[in-house]
Amino acid sequence: MPSIVLVDQCRLPGELVYLRTSDWRELVDAVKTLAVRGAPAIGVAGAAAVMLAAFEYADGDGFDRLLAEAARAIAAARPTAVNLVWGVNKAREVVSEARQAGASLQADSNARQAGASPRETAVALYRLTEDLIAEDETVNRRIGSHGAALLRGLAASGEHVRPLNILTHCNAGSLATAFYGTALGVVYASAQEGLVNRVYADETRPVNQGARLTVWELAQAGVPVTLQCDNMAASLMEKGQVDAVIVGADRIAANGDAANKIGTLGLAVLANFYGIPFYVAAPMSTIDCSTKSGADIPIEDRDRAEVLPDPIPGVEVRNPAFDVTPYRLITAIVTEEGVWEPAR
Amino acid sequence: MPSIVLVDQCRLPGELVYLRTSDWRELVDAVKTLAVRGAPAIGVAGAAAVMLAAFEYADGDGFDRLLAEAARAIAAARPTAVNLVWGVNKAREVVSEARQAGASLQADSNARQAGASPRETAVALYRLTEDLIAEDETVNRRIGSHGAALLRGLAASGEHVRPLNILTHCNAGSLATAFYGTALGVVYASAQEGLVNRVYADETRPVNQGARLTVWELAQAGVPVTLQCDNMAASLMEKGQVDAVIVGADRIAANGDAANKIGTLGLAVLANFYGIPFYVAAPMSTIDCSTKSGADIPIEDRDRAEVLPDPIPGVEVRNPAFDVTPYRLITAIVTEEGVWEPAR
Repeated sequence: MPSIVLVDQCRLPGELVYLRTSDWRELVDAVKTLAVRGAPAIGVAGAAAVMLAAFEYADGDGFDRLLAEAARAIAAARPTAVNLVWGVNKAREVVSEARQAGASLQADSNARQAGASPRETAVALYRLTEDLIAEDETVNRRIGSHGAALLRGLAASGEHVRPLNILTHCNAGSLATAFYGTALGVVYASAQEGLVNRVYADETRPVNQGARLTVWELAQAGVPVTLQCDNMAASLMEKGQVDAVIVGADRIAANGDAANKIGTLGLAVLANFYGIPFYVAAPMSTIDCSTKSGADIPIEDRDRAEVLPDPIPGVEVRNPAFDVTPYRLITAIVTEEGVWEPAR
Repeated sequence: MPSIVLVDQCRLPGELVYLRTSDWRELVDAVKTLAVRGAPAIGVAGAAAVMLAAFEYADGDGFDRLLAEAARAIAAARPTAVNLVWGVNKAREVVSEARQAGASLQADSNARQAGASPRETAVALYRLTEDLIAEDETVNRRIGSHGAALLRGLAASGEHVRPLNILTHCNAGSLATAFYGTALGVVYASAQEGLVNRVYADETRPVNQGARLTVWELAQAGVPVTLQCDNMAASLMEKGQVDAVIVGADRIAANGDAANKIGTLGLAVLANFYGIPFYVAAPMSTIDCSTKSGADIPIEDRDRAEVLPDPIPGVEVRNPAFDVTPYRLITAIVTEEGVWEPAR
């Protein structure tokens, strides 16, 4: 029985603790509690969870039915990031191909048996998970490379090449992916070229992914980093201390509207007001062409206790986990296949 | 020896605890630790602290020198809100008038003795403090009345009169003043007329004045209130759920630029982008005509531990307590003397 090992992001930055599990339900819980979060990371986790379910059900009855039920539950763990569904669908394709491999070759009554066995299917899912992990790093390094080219141009736009101050929100780094990160992948690739003076990381309320994860990750990597509260971004921009904003995305609609961690929309409006480029860095798997525009992206509402742990009588709480930035506020979307400037 | 009683705002909303002190140094500490905060409240506290110092020094030697030193220390407790200096200066005027009362009438060598005694001066400061407390409530009720007139117009701007959703930041309520509040004074006066559907209160990081004080105060007053994180304002505005933004101010420059709690500038940019009126409610004592523009307003930087209680090696922290909203982003400034629309 294989197992999945992941950093428990709920315990950072206090403790670096690894969770190890062979139970797909525990992996789903880890997605729900944000022990693993970040669109690309939960994409891989989605496929991995289907793989663990396949091993669990491989030796019993009703493999196909139980696996399909598990896949549905896994895909529903969080609604906004399309990568989760993308990862589960990758696994579904592998299952479908493996189980029907025989069927497509021979049309006799034994066709069902001619496909891969449950155990063989589980092993195929294991290989898929390995591939997705490796592929995610490759994709992120390509995003980083395309993004660094953008920043190189920006750094050279004055008389002298000048290292840049970059503002980011939430965590779109190694912790949010299999490795290297999307928005922070751009930072890492750019820092290697000496293009980064400092990263300003928003705290990112209410779960503090910036204050707990991004600053920790950047400090580990030796990138100069300053933490600020989300509401301090405007004053930083107004002082001319932000050269570019780079964030990740949880789902990008066909028109370029991008859902990302709550607060991203506000940063995009500010960047627009102060004339600062606003970049979204995300793998192609984040682009959901079946979603026409941002209005069609479901936004997860999370528990009020994340915002107000001790309820106050008579006080309501609003806790949307994401907002949608319209394409017209996005300077460019950086993917592994290149840079996309949404039509204005 | 008189004493000052104030709500310890650091303990809210968990406990409603009153601090009582006769020591001006303790009152200064309360200002520094934010046990008492809010521009009008610390204005009154500034005068009250000078009064306590006067009683302390009244029976010893060097009254004038010690009182002047105390006044300087009190005025320097926090740099941004002009009201603190305003309150201290009110006290200085009373001292100066009392001590020189004789001097102005008779020019003989006994002129100094002919003025009020230290104890009489302390009593005059006591009366000043009482007056400022009463006056602050009167001023706030007039601000509320002028603001309600504005909101009445806004509520009636559609086909039907429609109660409004109001967004506020930090706490500019009863807790921030002697009583009633400035921005929340407008809310209270408007709510009495049935003009308020709901108030959305920003959490207001890092000290959470919104999450601890504003929501508590509004719930006590029976005004429907929803708490959100600072970074959720954009998504609320984008959904059309904010009809007006109302905030207080800590110092307003001669050109109308207004310093207020960090995050206010971002809200003003957002309100501008979404076409939502952005109102500043503040007493005339907040307007500092000796400060030409926002660029001349000193911005207090507070302790990094407010943002990041457990330091992370290699991580810097930025913690400005205020930002400055340029006058062109302010729809109107509501004072006790009427509504001022900064020239565009």
